[in-house]
Amino acid sequence: MASTPRYRSIADALRQTIGSGSLRPGDRLPSTRRLADREGVSLATALGALRTLEADGLIVARPRSGYFVCGGASGEVAPSRPSSVPQPVTMGALAHTLFGADERVLVPLGAAVPDPGWLPVAALQQALNSAARRLGGAAQGYSIPPGRADLRRQLASRAASWGGRFGPDDLVITAGETQAMRLALKATCRAGDAVAVESPCYFGALMLFEALGLRAIEVPTHPRTGLNVDALRDLVDRHSPAAVVASPTVQNPLGATMPLGAKKDLVRLLAQRQIPLIEDDVYGDLGGEPRPSACKAFDEAGLVLYCSSASKTLAPGWRTGWIAAGRYQQAVLQARLEESLAGAPLIEAALACYLSSGDYDRHLRRLRLRMAGGIKGIADRVDEAFPKGTLLTRPHAGSLLWIELPSCIDALAVHRRALQEGIGVSPGQLFSPQSSFRHHLRLNGANEPTPRLLRAVDRVGELCLEAMD
Amino acid sequence: MASTPRYRSIADALRQTIGSGSLRPGDRLPSTRRLADREGVSLATALGALRTLEADGLIVARPRSGYFVCGGASGEVAPSRPSSVPQPVTMGALAHTLFGADERVLVPLGAAVPDPGWLPVAALQQALNSAARRLGGAAQGYSIPPGRADLRRQLASRAASWGGRFGPDDLVITAGETQAMRLALKATCRAGDAVAVESPCYFGALMLFEALGLRAIEVPTHPRTGLNVDALRDLVDRHSPAAVVASPTVQNPLGATMPLGAKKDLVRLLAQRQIPLIEDDVYGDLGGEPRPSACKAFDEAGLVLYCSSASKTLAPGWRTGWIAAGRYQQAVLQARLEESLAGAPLIEAALACYLSSGDYDRHLRRLRLRMAGGIKGIADRVDEAFPKGTLLTRPHAGSLLWIELPSCIDALAVHRRALQEGIGVSPGQLFSPQSSFRHHLRLNGANEPTPRLLRAVDRVGELCLEAMD
Repeated sequence: MASTPRYRSIADALRQTIGSGSLRPGDRLPSTRRLADREGVSLATALGALRTLEADGLIVARPRSGYFVCGGASGEVAPSRPSSVPQPVTMGALAHTLFGADERVLVPLGAAVPDPGWLPVAALQQALNSAARRLGGAAQGYSIPPGRADLRRQLASRAASWGGRFGPDDLVITAGETQAMRLALKATCRAGDAVAVESPCYFGALMLFEALGLRAIEVPTHPRTGLNVDALRDLVDRHSPAAVVASPTVQNPLGATMPLGAKKDLVRLLAQRQIPLIEDDVYGDLGGEPRPSACKAFDEAGLVLYCSSASKTLAPGWRTGWIAAGRYQQAVLQARLEESLAGAPLIEAALACYLSSGDYDRHLRRLRLRMAGGIKGIADRVDEAFPKGTLLTRPHAGSLLWIELPSCIDALAVHRRALQEGIGVSPGQLFSPQSSFRHHLRLNGANEPTPRLLRAVDRVGELCLEAMD
Repeated sequence: MASTPRYRSIADALRQTIGSGSLRPGDRLPSTRRLADREGVSLATALGALRTLEADGLIVARPRSGYFVCGGASGEVAPSRPSSVPQPVTMGALAHTLFGADERVLVPLGAAVPDPGWLPVAALQQALNSAARRLGGAAQGYSIPPGRADLRRQLASRAASWGGRFGPDDLVITAGETQAMRLALKATCRAGDAVAVESPCYFGALMLFEALGLRAIEVPTHPRTGLNVDALRDLVDRHSPAAVVASPTVQNPLGATMPLGAKKDLVRLLAQRQIPLIEDDVYGDLGGEPRPSACKAFDEAGLVLYCSSASKTLAPGWRTGWIAAGRYQQAVLQARLEESLAGAPLIEAALACYLSSGDYDRHLRRLRLRMAGGIKGIADRVDEAFPKGTLLTRPHAGSLLWIELPSCIDALAVHRRALQEGIGVSPGQLFSPQSSFRHHLRLNGANEPTPRLLRAVDRVGELCLEAMD
């Protein structure tokens, strides 16, 4: 039997110290150098121990200050511990039922769509008009894949700011993020393949798995640091997935962002195993300043298929996404042509025009502040009005709240009752291949926290209480 | 052995009369009543014989005048006689190569895209602005499938004018015709199934077959009357296709429109066999006045999946299509949700706004006239400048010319040479599952027939001559 690596045994000892209460939330850990001296190991080993705890979400690094024990853990959602067996995905019918409910929703705590009042609607319309003038008749031509060069240049230039390893020629414009993800799956997987994905994860990915006949291997996550790379390593070695799908920055539904070290580890692990990583970065621009690097920044092997869109931060109604697929570029381009021979030139030109205006960064700052306010408003009401035993991790970014209810509550029942009163919530069942998060809810904080909205949160709390009887 | 039905033997006798030259192009045939009297059969049997010849493209009905022998057959493209065995589709790579060439095209005789100068670009932009004002922030929301009700109402109301059997609630808005067709195939077929399709047919359909793992059964066509229903009947009985894909009105690439009787026969045949018909009606609005009924007008069984879009007549750049899927409506809606959770509300609202303005019918009349001029300009040059032995059917509608070159000419070689000079043409190889139309070309007449364009047609003729050496 192989002996435990030194960095892990040091991490385990520190974990015990934290668990015993000797180190409490907010306390500073010994510096890397002190830890190395104390344990008689190299700096790298000491750092490895600290990074392990960071990946587990127990400690957090603050720039130029060191590592600190994480927040008031009493109320925190537990790390996920999914089945480690590849599973067929059967949640499609559930999702369809839920979407059919859309028009009855008056208070939008369900869908992850930003309040249109928070989007630069007028500036986008100006960009559309300006693009229309410039394009003339060409606005009614076809934009042949990979899509307009002006938009690809703008996107590549923005990605360069966080180290994204791709240029305009590496991008393919798509009809939204969902198409980008589907093209990535088509380029890397075949029906019957197993694909690793975070637990919980975005249900749109699961719907794609189901449509393409893929099985899901669920990877444990921590509510603040997302995908657990050590756990993934074990799963990869046992099941050889055809691809890994992950959302390393502001994950949906957790709101978790993987520490930079964990992102690097993830890319390195998959490069060693030659497994493609399909990176969903649709919330990446909400990650704060400086904008967190996506895994694509560390992609030396061309194995990261980077997917994103303008839908979560700017222009949901424009249905525009993109993918930089590394060594799968040609396969993705072919799949794009098969799916639809052309894109919408006017929309693409308008998006390029808006991005070139420089307004986007200002808009993002405002949007992040508003989302933080939206999240806080809802989280405070959840603390107050939801049943005792409800667990909640306040995300550092994004607009989504992942809530663990007492285990006797069926989230789907709560969803149905809430919908009768015009309140939309997303039941946890949506976020795993076998509907396992039965007593979880995702709430969307991307709307102005008006009294009416907050009353609706209270009402959902009451419905949870009723559901316990 | 079953005896030949009476109507067929009468048809065969008439066919011989025409073949012998006793009845010549333009001659009138005996009236139905006279034929019935002469042959001692019922009116229905006599009509059956005449309709059989009409479906074969030998005779044509003129309202209130009777049946006439068709045009100067010497120059006419031959009816297609494809293999009757289901075949895998392998033309994808060829198509991808061709699309990659797009940006080198200066004279657009290839792609079936209308000249933007022929589209109501300014009115469309006005509709977009007006929709943006009306929607406000909702322009940046999601349009959840089936899509906006205002657009579905406009589309259903237009379809009612030709007897289309569907209402707003039967429609699903899609991201273009290609998505509509793909959803229809997903709802009716599984990988490995055989699907019947016209020979030649639109290569976009073949790309979908290839992507979904479907085999193609090619159905013979006539260059003026399209799909041969009798031939399809035999193929259906032999191969039990999972679906039939057809473009009964202004077929691509032939420009053929099935006579109304043949459309009814097609719907009846497939209803008897309980086989779904995926009807591509994207060129239907170009069919003339009154607007020809699509097969969907005769769909009592809910087996016709009617697909169309705004791309060929109005707004290619808006990427908006629709499908009325009859009894497959729920399956199509689910497939739509799987492919992308939402559509573009601003574009959908703008299209509804334009269609409600009443401008569309005026635009269509102008567009048809222009296309007729474009087609005539090119066809005259082909008659003049192409090698002796070139065959050409001048279509009664649409903008596409299907040309049969002398059989020694490789259309792909002509395509490559033309592209070197910036001239785009579509080689016949694109239009069948096994690239069988090796010496055919499709030319697009949807551009102003400027001297430069006509010189390019002459030049293609020269390249054909060179290719004979």
